[in-house]
Order: sequence, then C-alpha cells, then structure tokens
Amino acid sequence: MAKLGFVGLGIMGRPMAGHLIAAGHEVWLHSRSGVPDELKEKGGKPCASAQEVAQAADVVFLMVPDTPDVEKVLFGAGGVAAGLAQGKTVVDMSSISPLATKAFAARIAALGCDYVDAPVSGGEVGAKAASLTIMCGGTEAAFARVQPYFELMGKNITLVGGVGDGQTCKVANQIVVALTIEAVGEALLFASKAGADPAKVRQALMGGFAASRILEVHGERMIKRTFNPGFRIELHQKDLNLALAGARALGLALPNTAATQQLMSACVANGGAGWDHSGLVRALELLGGHAVAQG
Amino acid sequence: MAKLGFVGLGIMGRPMAGHLIAAGHEVWLHSRSGVPDELKEKGGKPCASAQEVAQAADVVFLMVPDTPDVEKVLFGAGGVAAGLAQGKTVVDMSSISPLATKAFAARIAALGCDYVDAPVSGGEVGAKAASLTIMCGGTEAAFARVQPYFELMGKNITLVGGVGDGQTCKVANQIVVALTIEAVGEALLFASKAGADPAKVRQALMGGFAASRILEVHGERMIKRTFNPGFRIELHQKDLNLALAGARALGLALPNTAATQQLMSACVANGGAGWDHSGLVRALELLGGHAVAQG
Repeated sequence: MAKLGFVGLGIMGRPMAGHLIAAGHEVWLHSRSGVPDELKEKGGKPCASAQEVAQAADVVFLMVPDTPDVEKVLFGAGGVAAGLAQGKTVVDMSSISPLATKAFAARIAALGCDYVDAPVSGGEVGAKAASLTIMCGGTEAAFARVQPYFELMGKNITLVGGVGDGQTCKVANQIVVALTIEAVGEALLFASKAGADPAKVRQALMGGFAASRILEVHGERMIKRTFNPGFRIELHQKDLNLALAGARALGLALPNTAATQQLMSACVANGGAGWDHSGLVRALELLGGHAVAQG
Repeated sequence: MAKLGFVGLGIMGRPMAGHLIAAGHEVWLHSRSGVPDELKEKGGKPCASAQEVAQAADVVFLMVPDTPDVEKVLFGAGGVAAGLAQGKTVVDMSSISPLATKAFAARIAALGCDYVDAPVSGGEVGAKAASLTIMCGGTEAAFARVQPYFELMGKNITLVGGVGDGQTCKVANQIVVALTIEAVGEALLFASKAGADPAKVRQALMGGFAASRILEVHGERMIKRTFNPGFRIELHQKDLNLALAGARALGLALPNTAATQQLMSACVANGGAGWDHSGLVRALELLGGHAVAQG
C-alpha cells in the first residue's frame, strides 16, 4: 500500500481522500479547517501542517479553492515544499491558473520532485461517486505513477500534455460549458418571447447540430426553473476569471467569455452567487423583461 | 397522387422537388432562374409564374432565400396569392423572419387557405439525401395534411407550434449552433496559445459536459483546417441577422449573438463569406495573432 497525502478536505477533497483511504492506502491529511472525524475514523492520519503531510507521504494531493491557496499550501510557512524530499510527487487537483501552475511545477522540480496538475470536473456528486473527469498535465512517467490513485477518484482520465496542460484543458472546458449555457439561454429566451413553447423548441433542437449535453440538461433546468446547484455561478465565475486573466497574459481576445462573465456578475448582483450555472439565463431574462418559462 | 407545387429550385429546392416528383406526385414548378431540365425530364411541370403553380396545385411549397423573396413570391405580381383558391395550403420551407411569417400567414388565411412554415436544417447534403430536419409551425390539421410530403424530404420532423413557431425554432437553432461554434473556437484557441495540443483538449472535453456535436465536428475542422462548406458563413450571418432583428422587435437583448454576428462580419471582411461556419474561429485567430493549429 502506498504512502499518500491529501491537503484540502472541503466538499471535494473530503470524499476524494476518503476513496484513497477506503482502498487501503496510508493517507496523511491536513486541512485549514481541521480533519473531519469521518476520515480519522476510517484510518486517515491527521497532521498539523501540509509540511508534515509531505514529510510522511510519497505522493501529496492538493484540493484547495484557488491559485493563491495552492501557492500558500505549497510554499508558505509549514507548506508542502518544506516537507518534500527528492523523488516525491505533488499532484494538484485544484482548478487554478495554468500559467501559475507552470511556475509552481518548476519550483517543485528544483527540489527533485515531480508535479502533476489534475483538475477535475463532475462536482460534489462526481467526487462522492468516484466518477470525476480528471484532466492531467505532467510527464508520462509521473502520470503513470499516480494514475492508479486517479482511478480511485474518477472515470474519464486523460493525460493532456505537459505540466499546466491539465489546467489549460479545464479552463477550455469551463469556457465551452459557460458559453453553451449562455447560447441555450439566448435561444430559449428568443423562442419563448416570440411565442413558441421553449420545451418543444428544445426537443426539436436535440435532433440536429444544436444538440449538446448542455441543451439537454441545462436547457431543461431553464424551462423547469430548477436552479439549485449543480455547479454554482460563483465557482464558474472564478473559472472564467482564470480564462480572462490567462487570455490577457497570453495576448488573446475572448469576446464571448468576457461578455458571459459579465452576465454571471449580473446574476451575482441579483442574489445569484449560489444559483446553478444554468441560472445564467436569468441575467438575459432581466435584460429582456421576460422569462423562458414560469416557475 | 397529389397535386403539388414547388417555387424556388436552387441548391436546396431542386433536390427537394425532385423527391416529390420521384414519389409519383404531379408537381408544378417555377423558379426565378427557370426550371432545371433534370426536373422536367423526371416529369415536373414547368410554369411561367408562381401564380400558375398555385392555380394547378393543392399544396404549394416555397424554398427561396430570404424574407423579401417570400413576400414577392407570395404577394407580388404573378405571385402565389393570385392563384390560390379556398382550401389550398402554402408551405414555406425558406428560413425567414418569424414575425413576417405570422403576417404572411394571416394574409393567406384571409384567402381561405392554410399556411405552414417549415424551415429546414441539414443543408444541400440533407436535401439530396432526404434527411433534412424540418421545424414546423401551423395548425395540427394543416400539418397532418402535408406531413407525408415532409417525410419524402426529411427525417426529423417536428410540429413546434402555431404559424411562425417553425421559423422561431430555426432561429433558435442557428443561435445555438453559431454560439457553440464560437465557444469551441475560444476554448481551442486559448488551449493552443497556452501551449496545449488542441486535439488532445478536444478529446478530453468530449467526455464531459462540454460535449456536443459542434465540438466533435466543427472542433475537428478547426484543428484540421478544413473550412470548405458545409454551411457558409454568409448564410449563417443572414440567420443571425434574423435573430437580432427579431430580438429588437420583441424587446430582447442577445449579447453573444450580436458579438458573434460581428465576428462573422470580420470573417467576411477577410474573404471568408464562403468559408464553412467553423471558420468563425479565424476571426478570433486574427484578434489573437495565433491559430488553433497549422494547416
């Protein structure tokens, strides 16, 4: 059995670390807000710092909210870097900046350790069901070493490329998802205000090139007015911020990502930080003074 | 066998009328640029005007480019309306304004005739293969009367609602398709400029919520640089114009439809009127000084 570490035991990290423990691995744990009793009872080993986790484990997984959190957990006082020794592996499963990831990986490599970025999609449901999609960046050797642990947490696991490419892929995913939700919102709102039944329109569109999982799932939420998450708008807003900050650094224009991020801000301004991201349609509905459907 | 008429025998109308003739119906034909010999040889009956077609046929199909063309064919000198008698049915398969359609239908109804709007998607390939998607608006009785003829031309046939709702559905379809192509373009361009392999990113995204037929088909075209139509940007631009004109009339804001229509204008400004609509990514590439892939 392997010696593993897990830093960050929130809504996502808790069930993910639980799967590693349940598979029989020794798992050292640390979290800003303490280690949950349920993980201690399963055999997880609580540590006072990320540094202690890295001293004990050969592979350290991170699952924290944002880029500054990863930086602090890795390189802050009592951080992972202070506990690493040559030959260990850091696996960051948080969703953070691809560009910062490349810099973090270089600093970890200077300590003689491997770095794999492995952000996920699938949310709390996928974390609990061990069905996460995992998008990885790193060397083939490092990926091969940690792949068995990914298989305990997810189903659709891809090595996209070198370090940072996993985060880049996650950002690309969030761009497509946000903009497709927005597209479905504009289309259903247009149809509804023109007097057509949005449910019939959705059904007709599912047969052609407009078909997508978003039209199917999020389109239905817009029509049935079920905006409980799911995936919260404030989280998706963070991901689009990563896209726009990355685009600025890379020298790219992402016009519809920018506009869609503004629509998410409009949702937040109207109390929607916690709405499911399909609730993005409500920003369009405010602009048009009309809702896709009653509910 | 029924007495049918077909007005407009261009790239789409020619094979569609051909299927009606091949099924054994009597089909009277008229087109601005004359009736093709191949349709005469199959037994189609050429007429000097749309009025003559409407005098001879019980059901008259239209397939012409835009709203003003439908208006002229219906109500201009020598038009369909002048040849109609009570109990006949007009079926407009062109893609035109939903609001104008409702007005046209009211004028046709005043002559004691039914009107069905039935725009299609699937393009020239779908017209030739009789596999068009057909989105219909009209009464159930009128739809039932013409459905057997639709089945000679298409496969995925939906009665969306009353007159105009077929056109509304088509506009909604074109919004979703254009904005999803744009979303895939932004995502793959971001990934490529960040140094990831866009083909690997597309593959990873196909496993999750970003999955769509557009990501699959148009995403591949962007990566392989195959921008031969398919569906031409100048035609999709016309459809987004219908969306934006409709939104203005209805009192709606469609921010990403507007931005995407501008990107199509940028493609046209750079010689892209005839590119496949996946070539929309080229406008983003111009802005970013970087292409998704070489080709």
